[in-house]
Amino acid sequence: MSEALNVTQKLIKSHLVEGELTPGTEIGIKIDQTLTQDATGTLVMLELEAMGLDKAKTELSCQYVDHNLLQTDNKNPDDHVFLKSAADRFGIWYSRPGNGVSHPVHTEHFATPGKTLAGSDSHTPASGCMGMFALGAGGLDVAFAIAGEPMYLKMPKVLGVELKGKMPNWVSAKDLVLELLRRYDVKGARGFVIEYFGEGLKELSTMDRHVIANMGTEMGATTSVFPSDEEVRRFMKQNNREDQWTELKADEGATYDEYEELIMDELQPMIALPSSPGNVVPVTEVEGKPIYQSYIGSSANPGFRDFWITSEIVKGKRVHEDVSLDVNPTSRQIIENMVKTGVMLHLVQSGARIHQAGCNGCIGMGQAPASGQNSLRTVPRNFPDRSGTKEDSVFLVSPETAAASALTGKITDPRKLEKLYDMKWPAYSDPEDYIINKEMLMGPSGNGEKKELKKGPNISTMPDFDELSDFVVPVLLKMEDDISTDEILKAGAEVLPYRSNIPEISKFSFTVVDETFYDRAIEANDEYGGHVVIAGENYAQGSSREHAAIAPRYLGQRAVIAKSYARIGWQNLANFGIAPLEFENDEDYDSIDQGDILKIENFRDQLKSGKTITVQNETKGNQFTVHHSLSGRQLKSLLDGAIINTFKKEKA
Amino acid sequence: MSEALNVTQKLIKSHLVEGELTPGTEIGIKIDQTLTQDATGTLVMLELEAMGLDKAKTELSCQYVDHNLLQTDNKNPDDHVFLKSAADRFGIWYSRPGNGVSHPVHTEHFATPGKTLAGSDSHTPASGCMGMFALGAGGLDVAFAIAGEPMYLKMPKVLGVELKGKMPNWVSAKDLVLELLRRYDVKGARGFVIEYFGEGLKELSTMDRHVIANMGTEMGATTSVFPSDEEVRRFMKQNNREDQWTELKADEGATYDEYEELIMDELQPMIALPSSPGNVVPVTEVEGKPIYQSYIGSSANPGFRDFWITSEIVKGKRVHEDVSLDVNPTSRQIIENMVKTGVMLHLVQSGARIHQAGCNGCIGMGQAPASGQNSLRTVPRNFPDRSGTKEDSVFLVSPETAAASALTGKITDPRKLEKLYDMKWPAYSDPEDYIINKEMLMGPSGNGEKKELKKGPNISTMPDFDELSDFVVPVLLKMEDDISTDEILKAGAEVLPYRSNIPEISKFSFTVVDETFYDRAIEANDEYGGHVVIAGENYAQGSSREHAAIAPRYLGQRAVIAKSYARIGWQNLANFGIAPLEFENDEDYDSIDQGDILKIENFRDQLKSGKTITVQNETKGNQFTVHHSLSGRQLKSLLDGAIINTFKKEKA
Repeated sequence: MSEALNVTQKLIKSHLVEGELTPGTEIGIKIDQTLTQDATGTLVMLELEAMGLDKAKTELSCQYVDHNLLQTDNKNPDDHVFLKSAADRFGIWYSRPGNGVSHPVHTEHFATPGKTLAGSDSHTPASGCMGMFALGAGGLDVAFAIAGEPMYLKMPKVLGVELKGKMPNWVSAKDLVLELLRRYDVKGARGFVIEYFGEGLKELSTMDRHVIANMGTEMGATTSVFPSDEEVRRFMKQNNREDQWTELKADEGATYDEYEELIMDELQPMIALPSSPGNVVPVTEVEGKPIYQSYIGSSANPGFRDFWITSEIVKGKRVHEDVSLDVNPTSRQIIENMVKTGVMLHLVQSGARIHQAGCNGCIGMGQAPASGQNSLRTVPRNFPDRSGTKEDSVFLVSPETAAASALTGKITDPRKLEKLYDMKWPAYSDPEDYIINKEMLMGPSGNGEKKELKKGPNISTMPDFDELSDFVVPVLLKMEDDISTDEILKAGAEVLPYRSNIPEISKFSFTVVDETFYDRAIEANDEYGGHVVIAGENYAQGSSREHAAIAPRYLGQRAVIAKSYARIGWQNLANFGIAPLEFENDEDYDSIDQGDILKIENFRDQLKSGKTITVQNETKGNQFTVHHSLSGRQLKSLLDGAIINTFKKEKA
Repeated sequence: MSEALNVTQKLIKSHLVEGELTPGTEIGIKIDQTLTQDATGTLVMLELEAMGLDKAKTELSCQYVDHNLLQTDNKNPDDHVFLKSAADRFGIWYSRPGNGVSHPVHTEHFATPGKTLAGSDSHTPASGCMGMFALGAGGLDVAFAIAGEPMYLKMPKVLGVELKGKMPNWVSAKDLVLELLRRYDVKGARGFVIEYFGEGLKELSTMDRHVIANMGTEMGATTSVFPSDEEVRRFMKQNNREDQWTELKADEGATYDEYEELIMDELQPMIALPSSPGNVVPVTEVEGKPIYQSYIGSSANPGFRDFWITSEIVKGKRVHEDVSLDVNPTSRQIIENMVKTGVMLHLVQSGARIHQAGCNGCIGMGQAPASGQNSLRTVPRNFPDRSGTKEDSVFLVSPETAAASALTGKITDPRKLEKLYDMKWPAYSDPEDYIINKEMLMGPSGNGEKKELKKGPNISTMPDFDELSDFVVPVLLKMEDDISTDEILKAGAEVLPYRSNIPEISKFSFTVVDETFYDRAIEANDEYGGHVVIAGENYAQGSSREHAAIAPRYLGQRAVIAKSYARIGWQNLANFGIAPLEFENDEDYDSIDQGDILKIENFRDQLKSGKTITVQNETKGNQFTVHHSLSGRQLKSLLDGAIINTFKKEKA
């Protein structure tokens, strides 16, 4: 490493408590702030309870309620009540239901240049927009961070993306990050932090950078980082916290492990086709397809500007008769500014449906499209089934493209608006007297009193998991590349309410891939005491939901054998005692069929040896070898059956 | 009947096509307008299809989408697409999703003094606020009305309610109608139209009258009627349709079958305790109970004033930390006016959660309260389980009481606000330049082209029902008084999406009363070819959902034997071939137990004879007598197995 450091290296170096800055090796870093949302946070709080924590050890932790806002029975509201009581108990900030999406609210009110943030949500890197090192992680990792433990990860390499030139009219930050997704696809940035630099930065506001940092997750990046510059200072001043601003820039002569050039003048409106964020083409290639829905909002287009541009495009016109224009304001603060500036009035007048502030349809909580119809969304993901509608057809776009298409009723390049509606490109500037609203952000009471946790009937305790042992179990599923956490355990209004109830939520394991999975897992558990699954590259990509590990584990999953893993998903497997094994030779993947019985003898010793592990395929009568990439610390958790067992052992 | 007519008599007389104005006898009246909402409308449209209708024969029909706005999968959006295609097909107005709740939108844009309205929603009488005769009915009745057939009902008596004096500060229309509910309970106005008159009318705006007319339904009234006076003219002028205004007042010397005096000066804030709208006491009696939620909105408090007063109360303050203040704007038009006048800003700033315009939590589509916690709502109903949370605790209140309690975190008499917050009672006047928005109300295309019905995978056709015959079947349920349609077939996000899929929705029959019902009905159908149920007084009160008849019928229900019936529920039973029988002697109710086998021989002949019908209790070895109150027309439908069979026969 050269003496001149880039922003990523500076951030890591200033927080390093274990390991060295050698890419690929495990490091432990101190975590300054944490963020939990409700879908993952209930379990985090139960874990803190199990760990016996008195008070959060971080500089700042905030519990958000943004995912499960559809209250069709007692479950979600009971969780809200529980989370508020847990925030009281552990000395954590609480962002009340309807206050907004965690990432932009955190960026607005809490994110701080030079600090680290761990969040139990895969889009936590969004706060990297302001010189912060912001990591998405499994809930358990975040629980440990709240308890003052370091966060462990592999020292990433740094991909430097140099931004050059000027943003064309009708093109915005979403198009920029979609262009990167076109180049890198959903795993091209694995093992990397994406660090943005260059003269083009001045074209991007802090919230524009939020859009880009947010969707680094879709490329598999560890996180994304922007410098903290004068623009960040302006943004923090707007949010009444200029005093927390510090400058953070790469040193003169800093280098990057990889380099990418992005000439902004060459950008054009981009679109991710169904059903992967990496499936990107220019909008011009699919223009004219009829649409059912245009959807504005989510952590991937959360800024006031994004709602403003939508309103500028539709104002004085009427949404096409076949289109539902669903507007999801990001936060209470954004709603207020929309109201004050006329944005809300124009949107409603033109026919938009205004929803409460939250994640909403982005995570399948409402606004599902009709069968067989196209939905255009400004959200970060379009994995299959995520919208709630089976065989959905969801495209990812900028607000400009969504708004233009809402008017015409078909996919439309927003540059066409000039001709179609005789419209001039509206140049944005932040409103004066931008309203700040922290009314529903409740600070930790901190009076030292031990508050009671309020548990509704759907909130169960963490199940016990037994130690790892040898096994002879069937392959219950053989899967392709890029299996996402949504496919392992889908999101949506049917499933998410059971996130604090492992026995119930486990019934939804792998239903997207194979509806018979649950029944077969129960049978396999009875007959063999467990099962394994086989997968291709990039297993468990997507969301950070640790339920995607806990639920299969609860059903008896002992190991996954894959060609490779997504980082957070891999970590969650180890944390909850599922062995994340990798093929030594990828061709062995082809030799295994669903239903084969696999056997590993002396499993504990083989794992500890650090060498390859031999797996017998009893059905085929052959054998193959696998290995693991676990650290000593992770291996210990795996052998103990779950990291919480290790923690308890060490405490005892 | 005297020569001097009251408003009710004038409305009926001017539309009478069959029968005479003798209370208790069947009359047929011409229907000028219809209203359908989405939860009931999908079936209405399928019925119109089955009837072979070309074009609506009414002066105006409008299909609203306000109930099923939570789109967690394809079902609700598929219905929206279907309803739009059906509106196109049959020449009906279409109010797009998010445009608002049917009743206030209809009142604002379509309701007309002197006209009749039939709606497949039990709160249709709300439009009685402006001299209209507005009836809630089963979907099938509305389908027949759209096809130009008369609407049949028993000629009601008229209860004249004379309003005297002046409304006290902090008391509003909701308190007035709750006071009437205290006096009349949920069945006290059965068989009556409630007609309001007197000097006190000048205290009530048209939307205040809407509040009162709306909740006449909760007293069991056939409908509620207000005169069309200068206030109605003002209201229609505000909505750009003064030209449609006509005066409609009772003649000098008009009389009423019953008379009630209401001295407004004596009114105070009232509250309906869980779990019946008739369970009313003054707010002072339950002050101090902690609350989880204050809920503003619904057809029972839909006016701009209701949101304005809430905002006046909370502005500059913060909602209590344990309270969710859920604000449900009534319509797109109301949202715009809230935005323009600052109401929205104050609400959001104080901590309110703003939801999309629609019925939402009022019909269990979201905003369910947490377990064991109190919810204060301005909605018309608090039947058990309706909120979505089991064993819920829902109170009905005015916006003033809801808003005051949202601040304090406990049930609070709004008159206390003067002391608690040094607040003056804010006197309301309508905003100048009230915004009118009809953008999302789509007129019938009327180009004569036969449009295709767009049916998603969850939209089935109407099942066939066989003719009525003798039976020997078990009593599957014995129920109490006041069983509501919500108990027969509950509302809510789990159930409503299946409203166009009879086999699926039938699985939810009576689950609120007895979760084993469905399985036992299937068994009884296999073994005996059907079942009966026993009930007390006022069976099938509440909503107009015809599914509460169709679903049990689909499971083999042949008869209900009850002490008495709610009007719409009774009509729905007859329409779909379930015999609605009444005990000759109410004591016989006590002699029957669940599980008894009942036998009726020569059932068709006994029904036709018009005399009492003998029922053998095979289990007890005794017999008892019942009768029916069906008209010749209804009897025909019952014998044919369903009115649609009769219609088909007559067409053939």
